[in-house]
Amino acid sequence: MSSDKVFHSRSQGIPSEGVKDQYADGKAARVWKKYIGDSNQRTKNYRDFLTGLLRKHGCKTVLDVACGTGIDSMMLLDDGFKVVSVDASDKMLKHALKARWERRREQRYDEWVIEEANWQTLPQDIEQFMPGVQFDAVICLGNSFAHLLDEYEDQRTQKMCLRNFAQVLKPGGLLFIDHRNYDSMINRGATPGHSIYYNCKYPVDIKTSVLVVRGKPELVALDYCIDATDEDPNAERSEFRLCYYPHGLDAFTRMLDAAFDGRAQHNIYADFQPLDKVPEPAYYIHVMQKK
Amino acid sequence: MSSDKVFHSRSQGIPSEGVKDQYADGKAARVWKKYIGDSNQRTKNYRDFLTGLLRKHGCKTVLDVACGTGIDSMMLLDDGFKVVSVDASDKMLKHALKARWERRREQRYDEWVIEEANWQTLPQDIEQFMPGVQFDAVICLGNSFAHLLDEYEDQRTQKMCLRNFAQVLKPGGLLFIDHRNYDSMINRGATPGHSIYYNCKYPVDIKTSVLVVRGKPELVALDYCIDATDEDPNAERSEFRLCYYPHGLDAFTRMLDAAFDGRAQHNIYADFQPLDKVPEPAYYIHVMQKK
Amino acid sequence: MSSDKVFHSRSQGIPSEGVKDQYADGKAARVWKKYIGDSNQRTKNYRDFLTGLLRKHGCKTVLDVACGTGIDSMMLLDDGFKVVSVDASDKMLKHALKARWERRREQRYDEWVIEEANWQTLPQDIEQFMPGVQFDAVICLGNSFAHLLDEYEDQRTQKMCLRNFAQVLKPGGLLFIDHRNYDSMINRGATPGHSIYYNCKYPVDIKTSVLVVRGKPELVALDYCIDATDEDPNAERSEFRLCYYPHGLDAFTRMLDAAFDGRAQHNIYADFQPLDKVPEPAYYIHVMQKK
Amino acid sequence: MSSDKVFHSRSQGIPSEGVKDQYADGKAARVWKKYIGDSNQRTKNYRDFLTGLLRKHGCKTVLDVACGTGIDSMMLLDDGFKVVSVDASDKMLKHALKARWERRREQRYDEWVIEEANWQTLPQDIEQFMPGVQFDAVICLGNSFAHLLDEYEDQRTQKMCLRNFAQVLKPGGLLFIDHRNYDSMINRGATPGHSIYYNCKYPVDIKTSVLVVRGKPELVALDYCIDATDEDPNAERSEFRLCYYPHGLDAFTRMLDAAFDGRAQHNIYADFQPLDKVPEPAYYIHVMQKK
Repeated sequence: MSSDKVFHSRSQGIPSEGVKDQYADGKAARVWKKYIGDSNQRTKNYRDFLTGLLRKHGCKTVLDVACGTGIDSMMLLDDGFKVVSVDASDKMLKHALKARWERRREQRYDEWVIEEANWQTLPQDIEQFMPGVQFDAVICLGNSFAHLLDEYEDQRTQKMCLRNFAQVLKPGGLLFIDHRNYDSMINRGATPGHSIYYNCKYPVDIKTSVLVVRGKPELVALDYCIDATDEDPNAERSEFRLCYYPHGLDAFTRMLDAAFDGRAQHNIYADFQPLDKVPEPAYYIHVMQKK
Repeated sequence: MSSDKVFHSRSQGIPSEGVKDQYADGKAARVWKKYIGDSNQRTKNYRDFLTGLLRKHGCKTVLDVACGTGIDSMMLLDDGFKVVSVDASDKMLKHALKARWERRREQRYDEWVIEEANWQTLPQDIEQFMPGVQFDAVICLGNSFAHLLDEYEDQRTQKMCLRNFAQVLKPGGLLFIDHRNYDSMINRGATPGHSIYYNCKYPVDIKTSVLVVRGKPELVALDYCIDATDEDPNAERSEFRLCYYPHGLDAFTRMLDAAFDGRAQHNIYADFQPLDKVPEPAYYIHVMQKK
Repeated sequence: MSSDKVFHSRSQGIPSEGVKDQYADGKAARVWKKYIGDSNQRTKNYRDFLTGLLRKHGCKTVLDVACGTGIDSMMLLDDGFKVVSVDASDKMLKHALKARWERRREQRYDEWVIEEANWQTLPQDIEQFMPGVQFDAVICLGNSFAHLLDEYEDQRTQKMCLRNFAQVLKPGGLLFIDHRNYDSMINRGATPGHSIYYNCKYPVDIKTSVLVVRGKPELVALDYCIDATDEDPNAERSEFRLCYYPHGLDAFTRMLDAAFDGRAQHNIYADFQPLDKVPEPAYYIHVMQKK
Repeated sequence: MSSDKVFHSRSQGIPSEGVKDQYADGKAARVWKKYIGDSNQRTKNYRDFLTGLLRKHGCKTVLDVACGTGIDSMMLLDDGFKVVSVDASDKMLKHALKARWERRREQRYDEWVIEEANWQTLPQDIEQFMPGVQFDAVICLGNSFAHLLDEYEDQRTQKMCLRNFAQVLKPGGLLFIDHRNYDSMINRGATPGHSIYYNCKYPVDIKTSVLVVRGKPELVALDYCIDATDEDPNAERSEFRLCYYPHGLDAFTRMLDAAFDGRAQHNIYADFQPLDKVPEPAYYIHVMQKK
């Protein structure tokens, strides 16, 4: 790094209207789509874990608060759930909207609600297009929550958003929220290229940078490099940077409990399995049941 | 840090003509002058250490390769040495040039050579204004060398500059070069506010950020905040960022030896004292004697 | 204008994926929507002129190559035409897509095709989603064509786009394309605030800047300032800049004829009326009939 | 010009400390030096005109308020005047300071005062380094004054600076101030490449852009392209942009009279000759005698 360079916290782009949008340049959205693969390539482990728990608790309506291009929402629609999908990035949403339009003849897709919404104003945003509604489940998966960085260095924004997720749940409803195993990533200076969520067929190299301020990790930048040129020599050069707040397991667990006023049932999974089954998991998935 | 911010590796400014210049915006140069204080405020420890060793080895001509505003060079001039001072930053040099003009009636100042020069082309730059000259001593002090960042991630530029320093020394000549104790700064996430070089009378807070890429510290950013408002409520708000490559003691020692082809006498001091006298020094000072 | 400012050719934002998009920041799209008003506020003169000529020539399918938020396309849909709407700006298109979704139960809206497309690759883009189709009419109205600036100073891009418009027309088909009366704007240094296309209820001030290079007008920048605070004191401050290439009537007429190889019927209207009826029109509308 | 480009009002660089400095990137200063040529190449017409009038009025002390690299000041020093030279650009001044240092053995150069100063605070700046001094003459030549752009669109800054020039003059003292013939440049869209001030030996092409806002010329940008590759194929590519406020002769004449409260003797010359001798001059030179 040279002295007149800057360390950009994301690939160039521009925030969506009033909202932070790391996908605003459109390229990230397209490359991301390639990275996560086709919707029928969701890993079986993920699908079984999510739909299994939803059914076990009788959940019928699901709010996907980080729907992105819509891939998880469509998996749930296809499995018979009623889904409301929101995202702050209109560059991501346009892929979801296109998919919905193409399948509008199917009743589930005709009823699929897709809207722009911002976690910081989530209850109000939902009130605008669905007055008086609460959900059986809220999902915030695929390491999405960590996109929210810690602007004020006191996690006030994260805390507010978690409370908003709790607020739009019905009593007894479930929140699914995950984050990468940042504790391990910081210790090892590396990020697993394979994902538990999707079967990406291309080799992926992830360069991991950690910014440590006054001794405290404040930002993790992942430079994804996806090489699809084996398959197509003219393939777009697929490099982009996404930045994350590196949630430690302990601190995140406490913050999540506090968002439910310490009264939710809180289960933590490691790569969709019991915590003690996976020695060094890639992801932690928290499932909260609102009382 | 928010997702659409960038982490600038220095205060805004612009490089000098073709050279990286972290002081190019002029403000840093002024604030830095305030930080390091008046020239008669150099610490006695520093002065005794430097002039003591120079005299012990019979050095008369000194090349100051990071003269900045000229404060160290003037200390040496006042102590009777012949000094040639260079810097890559013309914003820094203009303070040195002004000081020289004001004292041009004194023979030493009349003979003081001040020029812009770039470490990467140092022998050629010197050949331009002083053909055929080598020096009894070269000094590169005040953590100056660490300003050179590692653009190519293989330290090639640093290695070339160290060789250039060796080249402009006479046989038997001395190179003084230092760096902060980055090993300790990275471990502790903090930087000592007090300096061994100058007696800054203002309280100084230094926010320390470390960028760790693939597990390896690549950049340390120090945000200096100097509060002079006790003395003058209208004082300029003195904040600026300087970035450094975080040389570890072992790696720097090896790189320095290699620049002299492994044949120089290499002594290392801790805060101007023998290494074993200072448990956790702020600075390491290397003194190389060219064979 | 101060010496260290820059003259930005548009409000800040970022181009859509690979395409120049002056509306990329989203704000312009929202403000523009306010500026042009509701769809039922299209002026009667405009509607009568356009649909009158389309019906007179038996046109049934219309390609709107600059559909923006979809307002003109919806006017045509409501009047019974089959419409394909494209735009290069996905920030504009998302408003059109939303409108289409809300009225998807109406057959015309269900059949309304909306896609991203780029004038420079228009035939290929259309071939992607509608293979083998040509249109009875192409419209490029509302001063849209002048958004294309003259990057190479030889109008090569404009010429290519006009040829592409001609290519997607059936023989006998009509191209409607307009531009502001830049001849008059340059002479007078002012832009009429009222539009022939829409009934904007807010006072609009348009600051007109002309950049003249080597004696030739190369760019007109319009700074729109829309004051909606009478109605809502919390209204968004509606200022934005759009830049245009200032087509002169004579030069544009020649360029358009050349795009049809000099063989189209070319009629020019002034504010929807015969040329000689309007002494100083705000807009010129060209209607080309392909042979 | 493409829609996502910006029209920069100068070559990239950065303002000197708190002052607008179009030469801040250093490159412009070097290229400018090449453009204006060696000091012994000042045109005889210019030298005869300036020193003739200064001597005729018994002027001994001259303040050069736009000394740049010092070329005019040195011409005056060599002709026996006492000179104080100021400029806001430290990148320009460093060339003047170097020239002074090299000739410091000559008494005139030893006494030559060179300082950074800002026209907007000129009397105070001078009071700092020369308390209580007024001058027999002030010169502001070489189209320097037009570098001051019209940030507030009411010429308040220009008016203040002209008053400052008048204030530092002794009663009976002379102000020499010039500007290009912008009236003609705007009409013709072109700038004469030859200068009345210096004998540049290289071919110079000047691309002239005029920004007209609400019908009023507000900015002229000159893109200088100096081709020195005939002489040296490795010569630096000499292109840079300088921006000017396009003073009209009538408006500037009125503004200048007002700065002296309408009581100065005001003579206007065209290319150093009487106004009626030159049909289309390149420059107007105003000479004011303070009462």
